[in-house]
Amino acid sequence: MNLSTIQNTFVKIRSNRLFEGFVIAVIIFSALVIGAKTYNIPQEVLRIIEYLDVFITVVFLTEIIIRFVAEEKKADFFKQGWNVFDTIIVALSLIPVSNGDMALVGRLLRIFRVLRMVSIIPELRILLNSLIKALPQLGYVALLLFIIFYIFAAMGTILFAEINPYLWGDITEALITLFRVMTFEDWTDVMYETREQYPFSPLYFISFIFLSAFAFLNMVIGIIVQVLEKEGSLEQKNDLSRSLEPTLDDLSKQIEELKSLVLAQQLANKK
Amino acid sequence: MNLSTIQNTFVKIRSNRLFEGFVIAVIIFSALVIGAKTYNIPQEVLRIIEYLDVFITVVFLTEIIIRFVAEEKKADFFKQGWNVFDTIIVALSLIPVSNGDMALVGRLLRIFRVLRMVSIIPELRILLNSLIKALPQLGYVALLLFIIFYIFAAMGTILFAEINPYLWGDITEALITLFRVMTFEDWTDVMYETREQYPFSPLYFISFIFLSAFAFLNMVIGIIVQVLEKEGSLEQKNDLSRSLEPTLDDLSKQIEELKSLVLAQQLANKK
Amino acid sequence: MNLSTIQNTFVKIRSNRLFEGFVIAVIIFSALVIGAKTYNIPQEVLRIIEYLDVFITVVFLTEIIIRFVAEEKKADFFKQGWNVFDTIIVALSLIPVSNGDMALVGRLLRIFRVLRMVSIIPELRILLNSLIKALPQLGYVALLLFIIFYIFAAMGTILFAEINPYLWGDITEALITLFRVMTFEDWTDVMYETREQYPFSPLYFISFIFLSAFAFLNMVIGIIVQVLEKEGSLEQKNDLSRSLEPTLDDLSKQIEELKSLVLAQQLANKK
Amino acid sequence: MNLSTIQNTFVKIRSNRLFEGFVIAVIIFSALVIGAKTYNIPQEVLRIIEYLDVFITVVFLTEIIIRFVAEEKKADFFKQGWNVFDTIIVALSLIPVSNGDMALVGRLLRIFRVLRMVSIIPELRILLNSLIKALPQLGYVALLLFIIFYIFAAMGTILFAEINPYLWGDITEALITLFRVMTFEDWTDVMYETREQYPFSPLYFISFIFLSAFAFLNMVIGIIVQVLEKEGSLEQKNDLSRSLEPTLDDLSKQIEELKSLVLAQQLANKK
Repeated sequence: MNLSTIQNTFVKIRSNRLFEGFVIAVIIFSALVIGAKTYNIPQEVLRIIEYLDVFITVVFLTEIIIRFVAEEKKADFFKQGWNVFDTIIVALSLIPVSNGDMALVGRLLRIFRVLRMVSIIPELRILLNSLIKALPQLGYVALLLFIIFYIFAAMGTILFAEINPYLWGDITEALITLFRVMTFEDWTDVMYETREQYPFSPLYFISFIFLSAFAFLNMVIGIIVQVLEKEGSLEQKNDLSRSLEPTLDDLSKQIEELKSLVLAQQLANKK
Repeated sequence: MNLSTIQNTFVKIRSNRLFEGFVIAVIIFSALVIGAKTYNIPQEVLRIIEYLDVFITVVFLTEIIIRFVAEEKKADFFKQGWNVFDTIIVALSLIPVSNGDMALVGRLLRIFRVLRMVSIIPELRILLNSLIKALPQLGYVALLLFIIFYIFAAMGTILFAEINPYLWGDITEALITLFRVMTFEDWTDVMYETREQYPFSPLYFISFIFLSAFAFLNMVIGIIVQVLEKEGSLEQKNDLSRSLEPTLDDLSKQIEELKSLVLAQQLANKK
Repeated sequence: MNLSTIQNTFVKIRSNRLFEGFVIAVIIFSALVIGAKTYNIPQEVLRIIEYLDVFITVVFLTEIIIRFVAEEKKADFFKQGWNVFDTIIVALSLIPVSNGDMALVGRLLRIFRVLRMVSIIPELRILLNSLIKALPQLGYVALLLFIIFYIFAAMGTILFAEINPYLWGDITEALITLFRVMTFEDWTDVMYETREQYPFSPLYFISFIFLSAFAFLNMVIGIIVQVLEKEGSLEQKNDLSRSLEPTLDDLSKQIEELKSLVLAQQLANKK
Repeated sequence: MNLSTIQNTFVKIRSNRLFEGFVIAVIIFSALVIGAKTYNIPQEVLRIIEYLDVFITVVFLTEIIIRFVAEEKKADFFKQGWNVFDTIIVALSLIPVSNGDMALVGRLLRIFRVLRMVSIIPELRILLNSLIKALPQLGYVALLLFIIFYIFAAMGTILFAEINPYLWGDITEALITLFRVMTFEDWTDVMYETREQYPFSPLYFISFIFLSAFAFLNMVIGIIVQVLEKEGSLEQKNDLSRSLEPTLDDLSKQIEELKSLVLAQQLANKK
């Protein structure tokens, strides 16, 4: 049994629907195991779960290896974003869950195995790709929103730092506090506190809320218009097929040619 | 008077607008009775309400029986979702409101009689049908949203369970807490609590809010685009009638044929 | 000087732009007076304001009388909704602001004079008319939303009335509490309170939030689609003008007729 | 070296991409300096920052002078809104950050230098221009919203001023409180407080929330429809180019002319 035969077998396994179903089942199962571990469970069950964890790790590792071997050109494997994504997740979950400092990190990294759900279900992959594609186009509104935040945060720190250093101590704190104000979470408490010293502080807060809400609204509308335009441009592409058809102008010229032919004949007949 | 005559009578009753109006009136009345019972009312009135309750139950039961008898093929009756819906609601409200353990359940089930409003008013039925039809298409965004929730909940339990077991004790608690954070309800209290131990916890909360809000926003935009597309496709169907018309291409060919005829004649004349 | 001359004079006054500007100025001024009265102001200023109040009332009364006299058919005057609206507001503000029980009512009614701003500025009148027209079409979604509220309120009263009678005592209280939950205002406090007795109470709250948000969302989307459709139908009306043009089908028939003429001639020539 | 040569050199500098990149870098750097100053930093670093501040001020001043000299017609320089904007920001940041009363003002004004980011990046400038253009068209809905706010604020002051003078003391306070209610921030606390004296106060709050939310919603929908229409009108302009093409009507006339020619010939042949 040579290498090529192994590869063929692996290609078959990779495209097998049963194998795909099995991997999805293991992903769901690993998510359930992660959830189960958060409950108070007896020691025996916890030990079983640990064995299951090793089993899940082995399955994931095997699957990646199968897909890697099945790939004809090994270099192409890492050119696909989702393969890199899967490999990193599997590699990271190899960190042992010992009782040391790394235990917490190991446990946290195992959670990301649930993300493999996204990479294995094509519909989720498409959805996420389109979400990520939508992001850069929002860049400038996001930058504007950040400038608004930064200016208000700097003003807030200069004005209110002495009133409540916990909320306005430095610019990072002020940015968090402004994000809180933007979500309307107890923003009046924050305002009333500053108002004792600065009677006009409501102006600061209300203008911030209006500006940030207005910029945010424009971001949302931007996405809606973008999506609707994309739909529109798809329709226009369909209309492109029609452009191979003759235009009304072409028809008009054809009729004119015909007319001159008929006229030429009439002149010929008269002679 | 044979069975067929009874059925005919019942068919007439069913399609009688007065009968329909009466049933709607009884449904509204039953809703008012449910509401009235929640106030402190004297014993005598309560007794009258109990008799009214029996009366409502009898009316609903009679109405279902009339509609069932009026149906020609009995098997078809239960093929219609709304008939099954009505029958279950009426059957469940037959549970007696005694003073035992079932009293609470009986009273709760009687509330669902208000839902019969949906099944009897055609416009509400259509509205609900269209809402339910919109749900499966949102499936994948909902799944993505759930994966985001699950990963953050698992992380939250591992990191914050010891800080506040009431909010982060197990994954169910963490999911509820994250839903709370998503609604912006006192999320800063939850954050500040965890921040003492983990100075970077605002990153966890703000990234969660951004991711979930972004996924949710996409769900909303998805519905809007879907609805607008449906409208668009209806218009395209209207455009289909036009497609039976000749295209510009057809016209061009017709003119070319005409031209060759005229040319042929000219050649014939010259000879 | 007879009645007809007076009427003509009043018609001229009514359509005078200066007169309209003066009335708008008095409305704004009356709004400012209402605002000024809420501040701690010395007795002397208060007395001046009282005189101003009488002045404003006289101006409004005069304006209504001018518009009434200027109307040719007196019966038509009250057929226009906005005239009735203005007359009621002016009539109500005639109630004297004495120191009795009616003083509060009189002061409240004077506030509604600000609403005359809507009836005098045509753009605001159009805007409000279009908002009111949009309402009935939302009727069924609003009814569905109310049914959801009513069922949950009835369930809430039965289940939670003993836990917190202030929030769930009767169905009115429960409806207010649910409205509060829908606005996410301290809804977790309400939930955690009930959770001690009913561990599954989060299900009640989260399902309510989802159902009401979903119904509300549909209402919003309904308005957007409605508005966009209205725009669309306007465009279609513009397209109607094109329908007087010949269709491609008409052209095709014309060419066919032409072809048969040419063919007939060829046959004639061959003979 | 005469004046004209200097101007040419400055025009070259202004359009140099490196110079533009340098100015952007200085703006970002000035933003970072503003942020850095909010942290607890040792005296020595603070002194360096002060020198950097002078450096930034000099760079900005130089840049404005270069752009002013490079302008051919000096009067045109201040006709461009963004030039005026830049000049004001730079001029204001010339106020010295001494230790007097003006120190706070000077520090606040320096923050606005971050706004130069908007004026130097063309995409942000276009974005802001389009946002500002969208504002006036929202004017009437904003006016309606303000009338709703004002009427409810006046009512609130009259009714609730004695219950809680801090929230309802005068019309300014009442407007702030209503804005708070509109953001749903602890609105139930405000309501329950007033409810003890006025049992129907929930009606006041709920009707306010509905009216303001409805008006606000209309504003949002207004923007969406506006943006989509603008896109639509752009497409229609593209359609205008098609209008130079012959219409179907023109074609029909051409064919009719052709037909009459053929008929005329047939008549001639028969003779």
